[in-house]
Amino acid sequence: MNYRIVLHTVGRILQIEALLMLLPLAVSVIYAGQDGTAAIWAFLIAIGISLALGFFLTYVLGKNNNLLFAREGFAIVALAWILMSVVGALPFVISGEIPSFIDAFFETVSGFTTTGASILTDVEAMSHGMLFWRSFTHWVGGMGVLVFVMAILPQDTGRNIHIMRAEMPGPIVGKLVPRLKDTARILYVIYIVLTAVEVVLLLLGGMSLFDSLLHSFGTAGTGGFGIKADSLGGYNAYLQWVITIFMLVFGVNFNLYYLILIKQFKTAIKSTELWVYGAIVFVSGVLISFNIYPMLGDVGDSVRHAFFQVASIITTTGYSSVDFNLWPGFSKAILVVLMFVGGCAGSTAGGIKVSRFIIAIKTVFKDIKKMLHPRSVAGVKLEGKKVDDKTINSVSTYFAFYFIIFLIIFLLLSLEPFDFETNFTAVSACFNNIGPGLSAVGPMGSFSIYSDAATLLLSFAMLLGRLEIFPLLLIFTPSMWKKK
Amino acid sequence: MNYRIVLHTVGRILQIEALLMLLPLAVSVIYAGQDGTAAIWAFLIAIGISLALGFFLTYVLGKNNNLLFAREGFAIVALAWILMSVVGALPFVISGEIPSFIDAFFETVSGFTTTGASILTDVEAMSHGMLFWRSFTHWVGGMGVLVFVMAILPQDTGRNIHIMRAEMPGPIVGKLVPRLKDTARILYVIYIVLTAVEVVLLLLGGMSLFDSLLHSFGTAGTGGFGIKADSLGGYNAYLQWVITIFMLVFGVNFNLYYLILIKQFKTAIKSTELWVYGAIVFVSGVLISFNIYPMLGDVGDSVRHAFFQVASIITTTGYSSVDFNLWPGFSKAILVVLMFVGGCAGSTAGGIKVSRFIIAIKTVFKDIKKMLHPRSVAGVKLEGKKVDDKTINSVSTYFAFYFIIFLIIFLLLSLEPFDFETNFTAVSACFNNIGPGLSAVGPMGSFSIYSDAATLLLSFAMLLGRLEIFPLLLIFTPSMWKKK
Repeated sequence: MNYRIVLHTVGRILQIEALLMLLPLAVSVIYAGQDGTAAIWAFLIAIGISLALGFFLTYVLGKNNNLLFAREGFAIVALAWILMSVVGALPFVISGEIPSFIDAFFETVSGFTTTGASILTDVEAMSHGMLFWRSFTHWVGGMGVLVFVMAILPQDTGRNIHIMRAEMPGPIVGKLVPRLKDTARILYVIYIVLTAVEVVLLLLGGMSLFDSLLHSFGTAGTGGFGIKADSLGGYNAYLQWVITIFMLVFGVNFNLYYLILIKQFKTAIKSTELWVYGAIVFVSGVLISFNIYPMLGDVGDSVRHAFFQVASIITTTGYSSVDFNLWPGFSKAILVVLMFVGGCAGSTAGGIKVSRFIIAIKTVFKDIKKMLHPRSVAGVKLEGKKVDDKTINSVSTYFAFYFIIFLIIFLLLSLEPFDFETNFTAVSACFNNIGPGLSAVGPMGSFSIYSDAATLLLSFAMLLGRLEIFPLLLIFTPSMWKKK
Repeated sequence: MNYRIVLHTVGRILQIEALLMLLPLAVSVIYAGQDGTAAIWAFLIAIGISLALGFFLTYVLGKNNNLLFAREGFAIVALAWILMSVVGALPFVISGEIPSFIDAFFETVSGFTTTGASILTDVEAMSHGMLFWRSFTHWVGGMGVLVFVMAILPQDTGRNIHIMRAEMPGPIVGKLVPRLKDTARILYVIYIVLTAVEVVLLLLGGMSLFDSLLHSFGTAGTGGFGIKADSLGGYNAYLQWVITIFMLVFGVNFNLYYLILIKQFKTAIKSTELWVYGAIVFVSGVLISFNIYPMLGDVGDSVRHAFFQVASIITTTGYSSVDFNLWPGFSKAILVVLMFVGGCAGSTAGGIKVSRFIIAIKTVFKDIKKMLHPRSVAGVKLEGKKVDDKTINSVSTYFAFYFIIFLIIFLLLSLEPFDFETNFTAVSACFNNIGPGLSAVGPMGSFSIYSDAATLLLSFAMLLGRLEIFPLLLIFTPSMWKKK
């Protein structure tokens, strides 16, 4: 392990984080009359600590010697995400708005990992600066912090692909264009433009600028931190539909938007993953609409709430337009299953990802074909290309390991005195980066019910889910840290 | 597909089933004074139908042309298990003891698949003959009906390995000795001897012969049909310990007993799967003992009930010594996790199997090693032998597919108006061939709460679990049925 490049890069992340905190600082200054000055001081101190620690790591302990391989990539991503969350929690603690450091850490991890699970019981009591920071972490975490760093830092050694692979979700991570830096920039431009369009559409529907920005951050990152007690429940039908559509938009592989940008519409529209994703959303939405109609008594409301919740859960955003914990069991079961499915690879969504399910199912059919015709040469194709054996194996292994880790986290969380549905969906909601679960952690509940140990466990689950297990597990592997 | 050999062999199974029903017929005759003659007639009619159908399939529609390949093997196993359950349900329906055919089919599938889930609400009202048949199906299904046929039929073409592979659980199915017929005989001899030892030990503890036999059938097949309302709760501590130990014994790979038979103690005792299985049982038992001690207030009782339930669930037997649905959440969560783990490969137990977990976890570590040292040549070993890539892939694919099928069955079952815990553990208990779940399908509950459609769905889940998914799915694959 080349420690110095790791610390150098992680230090850079903290410097960037300090810069990012200037935005909520500005918001706190704007709202100082209403919220007081505690938040301003909190951000100033946190920025100072973040900068100091960042410079220390980058220039004193670290060194940019350009020797960056796969394991350095994993180490950078894992350490960056943990440290970023520790530092990002400081404003909440310093301002006293979330007094417990563990709670603040959970909230920040939940933000960066775009989970949206909250320990707050009264979100409306938070200051504007803190609410802004909280939702902004979604936006930053959605596309990936290190991808962001790649987009703005001058150097581009070609080695950064190891970082990108470790941070970006999905079974296949590739470059859009030859230079990684350009790929990162293209992704961020698409991301910013789509976010801006959503803000404008929300403003047109009568939402305030502050609310529009924060909800767009939460949608774009597929995060889902609400800023009202009833999440999106209090907004009008137009606004709920806008959010529904944009949640779905951000759950699509960004490569497709790039294809559209370079006018390859046909290739984009033929994406298998897009169609499967669309089909799952459509079928789930229709089934839930029928299932909840007797309860709501209105077709428009049923369809709107059904599709809002389906979009919210499959993209792992986690906003709610209604308390779906009160829905019939079948609708809730659909949502639980969607929790595991997740969005498309290469999007900001969490979960296992649609493409992994497609590859897994195609692999099974291939295996069946092989069983029936032992001499046949069967392969798995996705988006018109043959999926290589390495990817097929890594997808299957991912399922196996996902399953085992899920069981372990669930087992540990069961030490907490809550019912099966609460604990099971809490793990599911955190590990898949969704946010709300069912029962006591449903959309009207709060993760504050859990003990400190469980809060840390769930924070860990969120990081595992966002980084797709491996980077975080690798840092607990002794051989990872051997000097070369 | 060579239809004629398939129908020929399936017909043979039904003839064998007719012979097997002579035993419960004899029991019904013995208890005629107490139970009346309805059961006798029911068995006579069922035997007649089974024989007639069997001969018709074997000699009229079928033909033993010896052309048996992988897909014929799958077809034989899938069809045999379905038809066997249909015919096996007849005595219950004809006698009127289970009037609904769908319920009787569920009960018989539950028997043959060694699940032990029951739609009965008053098991003690059943006649002795029916109780015997019910428990005897566990014993027959445990080691595999087709393996039994292989052991007793004269021909041995070498092609039957395809049948054995399709019927026997676990990732690696091999022969103990060069001739398959001898392998099948050795397995059955071990099975019979172990069952007999258990019967004797139960008799010595004061259990009646009838009860001893039936409980031994249920233990040996890791089935778990109880014959009392409180399962094993009413028996003394000695008897509960005997059952605990024998449940664990039947959850071990039978190859190990064969190794002991041929005096290769050292190889047997070094089995990785055995040690991991033992460790899981020990740790789970100790954790639950501590967890339930405050509730029971007695060390001996806590340890006994803890280990009884752990043995019962991990081996997927499903007996209960106490209503564990009332236990604390942590203990219940351990049991839920054990439901998925299951016993060892090559045992009569269900679940995913310990060896699949070992291979999956080792595969992940291999992958991690490969990520850190891309040029390393890492392999996966089990029991001292290198596991070939085909097996590794099939294990990972099994997890992926298991997971997906679980979600689909759970989704469908959620149309039933029961709570999350009930539906989730009902699927888990049936798919893993355990028997009781939690909440409304807990050890004191009954699957009679479900609608006919759900009862059929769960029957299908039990068959999928017992045959490890593929044989049953293959029969729904159109290309399976093409003529060559």
